Amino acid sequence: MTHTLPALIGTRIEDIDTPSLIVDLDAFERNVKKMGQFMKDNGLRHRAHAKTHKSSDIAAYQIEVGGACGVCCQKVSEAEALVNAGVRDVLVSNQVVARNKIARLAAMAKRARVLVCVDDLSNVDDLSAGAVDYGSQIECLVEIDVGAGRCGVTPGTAAVEIAKKIDAAPGLKFAGLQAYQGRAQHVYDHAERKALIEGAVKMTADTIALLKDARLKCDIVAGAGTGTFEMEGTSGVYNELQCGSYIFMDADYQRVRDEKGEFLSSFENSLFIYTSVMSKTKTDKAICDAGLKAQSVDSGMPVIFGRTDIEYVKCSDEHGVISDPGNVLRLNDKLKLIPSHCDPTVNVYDWYIGVRNGRVEAIWPVTARGMVL
Amino acid sequence: MTHTLPALIGTRIEDIDTPSLIVDLDAFERNVKKMGQFMKDNGLRHRAHAKTHKSSDIAAYQIEVGGACGVCCQKVSEAEALVNAGVRDVLVSNQVVARNKIARLAAMAKRARVLVCVDDLSNVDDLSAGAVDYGSQIECLVEIDVGAGRCGVTPGTAAVEIAKKIDAAPGLKFAGLQAYQGRAQHVYDHAERKALIEGAVKMTADTIALLKDARLKCDIVAGAGTGTFEMEGTSGVYNELQCGSYIFMDADYQRVRDEKGEFLSSFENSLFIYTSVMSKTKTDKAICDAGLKAQSVDSGMPVIFGRTDIEYVKCSDEHGVISDPGNVLRLNDKLKLIPSHCDPTVNVYDWYIGVRNGRVEAIWPVTARGMVL
Repeated sequence: MTHTLPALIGTRIEDIDTPSLIVDLDAFERNVKKMGQFMKDNGLRHRAHAKTHKSSDIAAYQIEVGGACGVCCQKVSEAEALVNAGVRDVLVSNQVVARNKIARLAAMAKRARVLVCVDDLSNVDDLSAGAVDYGSQIECLVEIDVGAGRCGVTPGTAAVEIAKKIDAAPGLKFAGLQAYQGRAQHVYDHAERKALIEGAVKMTADTIALLKDARLKCDIVAGAGTGTFEMEGTSGVYNELQCGSYIFMDADYQRVRDEKGEFLSSFENSLFIYTSVMSKTKTDKAICDAGLKAQSVDSGMPVIFGRTDIEYVKCSDEHGVISDPGNVLRLNDKLKLIPSHCDPTVNVYDWYIGVRNGRVEAIWPVTARGMVL
Repeated sequence: MTHTLPALIGTRIEDIDTPSLIVDLDAFERNVKKMGQFMKDNGLRHRAHAKTHKSSDIAAYQIEVGGACGVCCQKVSEAEALVNAGVRDVLVSNQVVARNKIARLAAMAKRARVLVCVDDLSNVDDLSAGAVDYGSQIECLVEIDVGAGRCGVTPGTAAVEIAKKIDAAPGLKFAGLQAYQGRAQHVYDHAERKALIEGAVKMTADTIALLKDARLKCDIVAGAGTGTFEMEGTSGVYNELQCGSYIFMDADYQRVRDEKGEFLSSFENSLFIYTSVMSKTKTDKAICDAGLKAQSVDSGMPVIFGRTDIEYVKCSDEHGVISDPGNVLRLNDKLKLIPSHCDPTVNVYDWYIGVRNGRVEAIWPVTARGMVL
């Protein structure tokens, strides 16, 4: 197997091979601590979303230093990778409906606390059969659609019906509600975002009341992301938040503004695509070595960190076109790109290169890279 | 390490785990043979572009069955992965300018025929020093910009100047021209595409004439992709074509039409993202398990193969939203998606699952997955 390592511990930043994924360890650590403090101040649990980083090293840091109670994963195989690496409390914040995936989930529940989301009555039977088969317990959150229009059952009686069935099913435990407003996270305007979350909070509170009437207690009321966590966190309704991107931030989250029109909760960009100029035959542009295989451009082009004189304007498989009106770039010049969307960008790399004080201090594998099953 | 394997040899297609990358082996083999026949009929060499597939198994098939003379790669590490797996003739159809990458290229040239593209005079010195240092020979193509506006020196005297310097440099051999019109490949309209390639052919022919005046012979006149290869291939100017996507095709190449407005050269879709419905709480839509981490959506949404009643309309990290106006989809239904862009989609998977006659017949690693250095 050919290696994919762009540096070694001690390598000077300017000697890291490109394109590669670098983490500013100081900024990353400040982000984790800032979120931990918010959760502590507001008496909330933080179940950090590991779909952002897919790293057992980062999960451990979020739990040990940031005070997170565990992690969320979005795929069974992603959860397996982290459990295999030592994480002991994981919510698959998604539906698991295929028979073979349920078997993997039930087997994993023998060696870690495992929770999952449910939005379908027939799925309860299958999850129960899986848990019974393996002699394990799977905790279930009923997922309600609080406005994102994706997964989740309609809030209210439909949710209560599923919760009752879970409560009665062998091998399962009804643990609460998943009420994530995914669509709101990337709404740039604060007032618009707030209105969406107020709607979500109301739907969630109403469903909790109905569950109470049915003598079903929600130990967990879960949701929220980096774009809205202060809203759910101060609602008095949610008690377990699932923020993920705050550790890294990205160019799209940079466009999401707080009440004062400022950068979201002062989280800092800590994740960068390190890239080099590899062709410079025109006076007004340069070609760099980070293209579509070094990032995901679903949320637009990356932003060049700390520069306003040049702009990353276009992308093909292995090339990025950088507008260079002042003709300032030269062959082998290195640049730090803020990815437009951190999660799917991380997923194409094998390694995080952690840097501090001008050199490489940590190299972490992207433990669950490519774990889409 | 957690495995990422969605099937075993013999698994029935409907039991392959999802999301996963499946190859219709019959369609794939027909595509390879069709391209091989075109090259043979026109007396051309085919240096198949491996950036599409990143697979040593597919490279071997293209060489042994399709008659390819070798492969192109777009990155040094991608080339290393294929050379390590047995490929013996590789062009890095890109600039290699960083000192450490040149060292890797020169080292690789001790165990395979290695060619590279050059568009900068100073790069000639560095490549020469690397080759001399390792006691190897690197063959160089001067890359000219024939209209794509990306890498490549201006056709004409600037190209001749670089060729002369290569010809005189120890450890290097001037091998010809790289004249790839990348922009033309995905121009949907045939006449517009043809005009772009006619321009490229003229610039290339003019540069060859100038090189001849300087007593420099172009053994290789290289370029062309799946969108235009018949044009370069019948130009009388190009002799080595670099098509890659023809083996798989994708939704964007499906929009590129031939003279009669038909699907390009009758190549067939052989590559699919296999996906399952994992949430179905609305009558008019379904949620599938292939999102941004199971594909690249830089060229738009994927197309659902063989279906006109449903449509993949939206994508988030781990979910795809499928419009289902007839409410025909059910939980665990499986669908085949034609990726919008094959190259960066392949790059997020570890395995090709080759299927024929209803079951898995071959499992190939994506040998150079993630090799971006």
